[in-house]
Amino acid sequence: METPTNVTIKGILGILMASLDEENKKRVISLGMGDPTAYSCFTTTDVVQDSVAQTLESQKFNGYAPTIGLPQTRKAISEYLSNDLPYTLSPDDVYITAGCTQAIEVTISILAKPNANILVPKPGFPIYELCAAFRNVEIRHYDLLPKKGWEVDLNAIDELADENTVAIVIINPGNPCGNVYSYQHLKKIAEAAKRHKILVVADEVYGHLAFGENPFVPMGVFGSMVPVITLGSLSKRWLVPGWRLGWFITTDPNGIFKNAKTVERLKKYFDICGGPATFIQAAVPRILSDTKEVFFARTIRLLKQSSDLCFEKLKGIPCLTCPQKPQGAMSVMVKLNVSLLKDIRDDIDFCFKLAKEESVILLPGLTVGLKNWVRITFAAEPSSLEEALDRVKSFYQRHSHQQKVQNDLIL
Amino acid sequence: METPTNVTIKGILGILMASLDEENKKRVISLGMGDPTAYSCFTTTDVVQDSVAQTLESQKFNGYAPTIGLPQTRKAISEYLSNDLPYTLSPDDVYITAGCTQAIEVTISILAKPNANILVPKPGFPIYELCAAFRNVEIRHYDLLPKKGWEVDLNAIDELADENTVAIVIINPGNPCGNVYSYQHLKKIAEAAKRHKILVVADEVYGHLAFGENPFVPMGVFGSMVPVITLGSLSKRWLVPGWRLGWFITTDPNGIFKNAKTVERLKKYFDICGGPATFIQAAVPRILSDTKEVFFARTIRLLKQSSDLCFEKLKGIPCLTCPQKPQGAMSVMVKLNVSLLKDIRDDIDFCFKLAKEESVILLPGLTVGLKNWVRITFAAEPSSLEEALDRVKSFYQRHSHQQKVQNDLIL
Repeated sequence: METPTNVTIKGILGILMASLDEENKKRVISLGMGDPTAYSCFTTTDVVQDSVAQTLESQKFNGYAPTIGLPQTRKAISEYLSNDLPYTLSPDDVYITAGCTQAIEVTISILAKPNANILVPKPGFPIYELCAAFRNVEIRHYDLLPKKGWEVDLNAIDELADENTVAIVIINPGNPCGNVYSYQHLKKIAEAAKRHKILVVADEVYGHLAFGENPFVPMGVFGSMVPVITLGSLSKRWLVPGWRLGWFITTDPNGIFKNAKTVERLKKYFDICGGPATFIQAAVPRILSDTKEVFFARTIRLLKQSSDLCFEKLKGIPCLTCPQKPQGAMSVMVKLNVSLLKDIRDDIDFCFKLAKEESVILLPGLTVGLKNWVRITFAAEPSSLEEALDRVKSFYQRHSHQQKVQNDLIL
Repeated sequence: METPTNVTIKGILGILMASLDEENKKRVISLGMGDPTAYSCFTTTDVVQDSVAQTLESQKFNGYAPTIGLPQTRKAISEYLSNDLPYTLSPDDVYITAGCTQAIEVTISILAKPNANILVPKPGFPIYELCAAFRNVEIRHYDLLPKKGWEVDLNAIDELADENTVAIVIINPGNPCGNVYSYQHLKKIAEAAKRHKILVVADEVYGHLAFGENPFVPMGVFGSMVPVITLGSLSKRWLVPGWRLGWFITTDPNGIFKNAKTVERLKKYFDICGGPATFIQAAVPRILSDTKEVFFARTIRLLKQSSDLCFEKLKGIPCLTCPQKPQGAMSVMVKLNVSLLKDIRDDIDFCFKLAKEESVILLPGLTVGLKNWVRITFAAEPSSLEEALDRVKSFYQRHSHQQKVQNDLIL
């Protein structure tokens, strides 16, 4: 197996962290990763903690679970997701995974066959590319359109899809762009997929984290039109990404994808997957039934506040342009105008110099597919976010041509 | 991707469970799976439970861990394993996995390359075959020799290995055979691997669970002679298989396997793996340092008792022959003599009729590679084990030719 050449988010963030200037007295602020749990305002709620403490303490769930997941967990998740669908999912539609990462890995591996290709968004989430590289699946990128609120370039789909295309991946609410698709746009995606006889893989790891104009609509709503594989997890909505509790769902009421052979293959594939801890699985029914609306509402309010703050502060940094106010998820893409900077080559150079000089970590856009863009995670404590963006502004001022002119005048 | 045709242990056990006679009043006793946690005598110890309860409660570990594992967890495991080695492992040798299953999956995936083959034991653990089928790696089986205490047929290694062989897998203490290899035998395996310039993959998920003549010797002891990948987990020794906390270790002090390119590939591969929950990882240092010897000694004593009981009871069932008294792990292989039975075709037929008539689950040997053998998990409450084997005896008596002769006489 060759080593894929892809960069990964964690890989590049690791190198960025290692490049911090140790003599720099400023505290490190990372807006690099979609994990807000480092900030005390983004703490999960008691019932979630208690549910797991209870199943752990019971000692009833220290043994193996079925590799596709505990029956009660699959049932609870099928009911949870069915709430937002025009039909009812069966527990048999639900497969429990070690976080959404493993759900992605299962998806790519199950779709892999000789010459297969998968359409994925650009910008997107690099684990898709990395998985595809390890599984010898071809990736074809379609553009998200910044001027159209990061909608899918539907014309590109028609150009890219051929007889070897097996699926289109969409991420909604959007990572890295912070967009939320309308019902109408999702319907058009479903129609395009139907036209090309391909599956839709709906990465809804940020499901329900919508705070703008468009409400969150699960892609499974169109499952009767086109088979949908829905990926999700407790990670983001319940603020427990480290618990590794995700799901892979066949949102396919007509059973187009989930024929007997596919189901058999899927079940066998789960036999080689590690899966999440049994006692965490066992806590899911209570977590899903007992988490209060007020907790979800609080997270949404916090995310809206911090995304608004981020959007406003960015207006004061001329080299960074935000094409669309974030509407969901935890991050936003901003365009970097290097021509305004005297000594910054590109987004990578920008992020490394920023880390060294200001102890602020942002993610180079190249990592998610867009050179000379930057991904900013706004899911942070407002005071930290504010301080980080103030430092980015100072960084801009120091590195702008404007500054050079001033220096020249002084000299 | 084609569906592999392999049977899996959980797959066949599921079918066996489904074939139980619901009108049968006898309680179901399963000796089918290596998960003793259903029996109250095989309960983990308080410090293990408390360690996880504590890291959960702290809420400090709800976020993502690095995909290769938390630094403190890697350090603690490197120290734990180094105790039994003639050299010191580095935390960098340790990669944390979602149970030993994921460690196997990583191993096979990392070793996969066009035309590669891997030598695995027969009988063995079918996840190796299943993984290899999904990753297009050829499996070549070498025999374990029942008359030599299930030692590796070293001559077979020399016949099977060729220029495309990348590794030999050994499972010690042995699943399914319950054997424990001597230092001398492990040394011969290392020499054979060195001769053929292949890695040794040492599946030590049952590490330290030895109660016979041979003490447990980790294969890593020979890491200076030949690179060893050691796989293990908390599952069996700490009696928490459902926690999914395993490890993949480069036991390779000369750095023959772990060159820069391999390490880079490994790290990238972990980026697509789900991994175990962060708070469970965070509990590992305390679990490893604070678990008392008395807990381990108790488990060993229980396993020895139950394996002795199993061995003795089997002597009273003529159609089942145990070639070697178990010395470790949790199961034993027994040969089924169908010629003594009037209406049993083979091991599959035996196990299905036994399940239906006696509500006792044993694993057909075919599942682990040996037709007309049966795997019995002796890690069970002695009273259950005794009752189960009494029922097997009744089953034998009802189905033996002897019984037929008696019936004929009566008629």
